[in-house]
Amino acid sequence: MEFKQFKEFSSEMIDYVGNYLENIRDRKVLSSVKPGYLRPQLPAEAPNDPENWKDVMLDVEKLIMPGVTHWHSPRFHAYFPTANSYPAMVADILSDSIACIGFSWISSPACTELEVVMMDWLAKMIGLPEIFLASAGQGGGGVIQGTASEATLVALLGAKARVLQQLKQANPTLVDADIVPKLVAYSSELSHSSVERAGLLGGVLLRALATDGEHKLRGDTLREAIIKDRADGLIPFFVVATLGTTSCCSFDRLDEIAEVGVDENIWVHVDAAYAGSAFVCPEYRHYTKGVELVDSFNFNPHKWLQVTFDCSAMWLKNPNHVINAFNVDPLYLKHELEGQMPDYRHWQIPLGRRFRSLKMWFVFRLIGVANLQKSIRKDINLALDFAKRVEEDPNFELFNEVTMGLVCFRIKGSNELNETLLKEINDRGKVYMVPSKVKGTFFLRMAICSRYTQIEDINFTWNEVQESGKAVLSKQ
Amino acid sequence: MEFKQFKEFSSEMIDYVGNYLENIRDRKVLSSVKPGYLRPQLPAEAPNDPENWKDVMLDVEKLIMPGVTHWHSPRFHAYFPTANSYPAMVADILSDSIACIGFSWISSPACTELEVVMMDWLAKMIGLPEIFLASAGQGGGGVIQGTASEATLVALLGAKARVLQQLKQANPTLVDADIVPKLVAYSSELSHSSVERAGLLGGVLLRALATDGEHKLRGDTLREAIIKDRADGLIPFFVVATLGTTSCCSFDRLDEIAEVGVDENIWVHVDAAYAGSAFVCPEYRHYTKGVELVDSFNFNPHKWLQVTFDCSAMWLKNPNHVINAFNVDPLYLKHELEGQMPDYRHWQIPLGRRFRSLKMWFVFRLIGVANLQKSIRKDINLALDFAKRVEEDPNFELFNEVTMGLVCFRIKGSNELNETLLKEINDRGKVYMVPSKVKGTFFLRMAICSRYTQIEDINFTWNEVQESGKAVLSKQ
Repeated sequence: MEFKQFKEFSSEMIDYVGNYLENIRDRKVLSSVKPGYLRPQLPAEAPNDPENWKDVMLDVEKLIMPGVTHWHSPRFHAYFPTANSYPAMVADILSDSIACIGFSWISSPACTELEVVMMDWLAKMIGLPEIFLASAGQGGGGVIQGTASEATLVALLGAKARVLQQLKQANPTLVDADIVPKLVAYSSELSHSSVERAGLLGGVLLRALATDGEHKLRGDTLREAIIKDRADGLIPFFVVATLGTTSCCSFDRLDEIAEVGVDENIWVHVDAAYAGSAFVCPEYRHYTKGVELVDSFNFNPHKWLQVTFDCSAMWLKNPNHVINAFNVDPLYLKHELEGQMPDYRHWQIPLGRRFRSLKMWFVFRLIGVANLQKSIRKDINLALDFAKRVEEDPNFELFNEVTMGLVCFRIKGSNELNETLLKEINDRGKVYMVPSKVKGTFFLRMAICSRYTQIEDINFTWNEVQESGKAVLSKQ
Repeated sequence: MEFKQFKEFSSEMIDYVGNYLENIRDRKVLSSVKPGYLRPQLPAEAPNDPENWKDVMLDVEKLIMPGVTHWHSPRFHAYFPTANSYPAMVADILSDSIACIGFSWISSPACTELEVVMMDWLAKMIGLPEIFLASAGQGGGGVIQGTASEATLVALLGAKARVLQQLKQANPTLVDADIVPKLVAYSSELSHSSVERAGLLGGVLLRALATDGEHKLRGDTLREAIIKDRADGLIPFFVVATLGTTSCCSFDRLDEIAEVGVDENIWVHVDAAYAGSAFVCPEYRHYTKGVELVDSFNFNPHKWLQVTFDCSAMWLKNPNHVINAFNVDPLYLKHELEGQMPDYRHWQIPLGRRFRSLKMWFVFRLIGVANLQKSIRKDINLALDFAKRVEEDPNFELFNEVTMGLVCFRIKGSNELNETLLKEINDRGKVYMVPSKVKGTFFLRMAICSRYTQIEDINFTWNEVQESGKAVLSKQ
C-alpha cells in the first residue's frame, strides 16, 4: 500500500470511527450473535493477491460490528470502564509509525525519557508522595505496564527477590528451595482474580483474608495472619491492598495495612486499578492515606483516565529488587550508557514495549487536568444519582455505599430473584451489566463506563431496571 | 476534543507520519541525544487547561524526533526487524475506537472469533500441521500473545501444570513442594534471554545446553542431559527449540528435539520469534521438520510479517494445560456461553487484551500472501548480497552461513579489533548495528530491518563497514 492509498484509506477510517463513536448510542450495546457466527462468513484462508481496502471497510460494518459489544455505549454498564479518547487515538497513530521497541534507553531514547517524565506528571496529578518520582532522585520511579495483572505479578516477583536476598544474606547456608515453599502472600478476599493468579504464577501461597463489615481489609486482620503464619514456620513477604475492588468498589484500609507492612517487613503493593484515576480529584485522596509507606503502587489510566488500553501506571520505591529479579542480559541488548536512565526491559515481564507515553502526553496536554477531574466527577455524580433512585424505590436496595462510578444494587429478595433480574435486563438487550457476589449475597453492578453517558442515559437504564424488576416480580 | 477537531488533527498526523516514513532515509538512524535530554525541555507538570493540538504537533518534531532511533530507516541494522505497514496502522485506528477488552467471548464476540480464524489463516500460511488449527476440531488452536517472552512463559507454565498433574495422578501422596524444586527445563545455550527469564519467573531450573559446530542444539545432547538429570533425581519437563536464534540466526534441530520430547514425555516449545515469518515461503519450511510432534509453537508477525507490535502468534496443541494453570474465575467474568468458543483470558498472563486480530486481517487481505512472500525473499536476498561482499573482501569474514535476513560478520582479527570496528561504525552515525558473541567469538550483526531497504542501502552500509574497517586497521 502506497502513501496515497494510505491517506484515502485512513481518512475514510477516521470518518468511520468518528461516526461510530458519536452515534454509538444507537447501536445495540450487547452483541446478539451466537458463538461461531463469524467463521462461515470468512474465506478459509488468506488471499494470495491484495484486495481493495474499500471491500475491507465494507466488511468491518457487515461482519465485525454485529459481533462487537460496544464498551463505549452509554448503555454499557458491565465490568469497569476502559478508556477511549480522540487525543489517545491520534497518539497511537504516531506511536504505530515510529514503531520503536523501547526495551532500552538506546533503542529509542525519547520512548524511555517521555515515559519517565509522564510517570512523574501522573504521580503529581494523583498526589503520590515525592519518593515515587524519578525527579526526586531517590531511586524511585514509574513505568508503564500492560495491565494491572502484570503490575501485581511484577511486584510479587520483586518482593520475592527481596525476601530471598534478605534471608540468604542473614544466613548464607540457605538456598531458594529452603525458603520458597514457606513464602506466604496476602490480599483481601475481594482482591481481583489477577492477584490470586499472580500467586499461582509466582509459585507462592496466597492467603485471601476476611474483610470487615464494609468489605475492607483491616490492619489487625493482616497482623494476626502474619503472626499465626510465622508461628507455623511460614515466611510472610507480600501483601496487596486494593483501593476500589472489582466486586463492589470497597477500599482496603491502606493506612493500617501500610503500617503493618513496615512493622513486619513485608512488601506492600497497592492495586488501585480502577479507582486510582479518581485521585486526580483531591477530595478522593483520603483513601491513599499511608501510601508513603508502601513499596509499589499501580492504577490503570486505560480504565478511567482517557488513555486507551494498554497503559497501566506502576511506581516502585526501589526498582532494584525487580531489576535484580529480571536482569538476564545478553550482549546484543547492552549499551554504553547503561545506568544513566532506566532500561525498562528490566522492569517488566515482556522484552518489547511500544511508545505508550505518547498517549499520556497527548491526553494530559489536550484534555488538561481540570477536564480530567470534571469527567471523573461527572461519572461519580451519575452513579450517585442512580443510587438515589435505587434507595427511593421500595423494591430495590443498595448492596453498599456508592463512592465511585459503580453502583452495587439488588432487588429485595433472594439471590435467585436477582439472577433472574439480571438475565431479564440483559436479555432485553438495551443495557448491559454483570453481577457479583460478596459474602453470599448476589447483586448487580451498574458501572458508568462511557464518556458519552449523560443523565438521560441514567434515566434510560433505571427505567430498564424498573421494568425488568416488575417483569420478574410479576412472574413470581 | 470534538469529532471535527479530531478529523483535522488526525488528518495532519496522517500526513506527518506518511511523510516521516516515506522520507525516513534522510534522518540520522541513531539518535545522538545524551541521557536526560528531554526533561529540561518539558514543563514539570501537566497543564490544567487544554492546549492546542497544533502546539503538540510542533513539539513532536522538535522534542520527540531528535530522541528517536529510527527502526524503519533502511540504515537500521540492529537487533531484529519490527513490523510497520499502512494496513496495520489503519487497523489500529479501528481497534482503538472499538476499544473493547476481549478477555472473554461475551465481552466482544468479534474480537475472539476473528482471532480464532486469523490464527488458522496464519497457521496455514506458514504450513503448520492441521492439529494446531481450531477448525480441525481436535482441541488445538492459536492465540495472540503480546511478545515471544510471554509465549515462552505461558508454555513453561502450561508444561509445569501438566507435569504436576501427571505426577500427582500417578502418586496421590505427592504435593507440589515435592516436585517443583526438582523440575528442570532445557534450551540451547543460544536461546533468547527471555527463555532464561521464563525459567527464573517460573521458579524452575533452566539448563542451557551446548550446541554443535553449526550452533544448533541436537537431539543427542538433549537426551544425554535428560538421562543424567533423571539419574540425579531431577524431573525434566520442558524444552525450548529455537528456530532462528537472536545471536546468529542458527536453527536448532527440531526434527531430533521433537522426537526426544515424545520419547521422554517432555513439553516441546518452538521459539521461532524472528524466523517464523519466513515460513510463509515453502522453501524455508524444512526447518520446521518435526513440528507435528511439538506441544506449542510461537513466532512474531510483529517482527517480519508487517503486523505492527504487539502481535506474537502462539499455537497450542492442547490449551487445557495452560487454561488449568491460569483459571481463577470470579463471578463478574463468567458468562452463559462458556466453552463454545475460547475465553482467551485463560490463555495468557494479563487479563485485558486489545482487538489485535484486526491488524492481521487488514495486513493479510490488503498485502496478500504473495507480497508477504516477496518481501521476505527480498530481505533474504539483500542479506545474501551483503554476505557475498563480506566473503569477497580479504579483510572480512562471515561468522556463520547466512540463511535469513541476518549477516553475522567480523573483521579478521581479535575480538577487540571487532569491538573497535563496531564502535567506529556506530560513531559515524550513518548506520546502526549491535554485536553478539558466540563461544568466545565477538562479531557484528547486520540485520535487514526496514521495508524500505533496497540494494542501494546495502551498498551504502557495506561502504560504511569498509570505510570503518580501513579506519580501525590504519590505527592499529
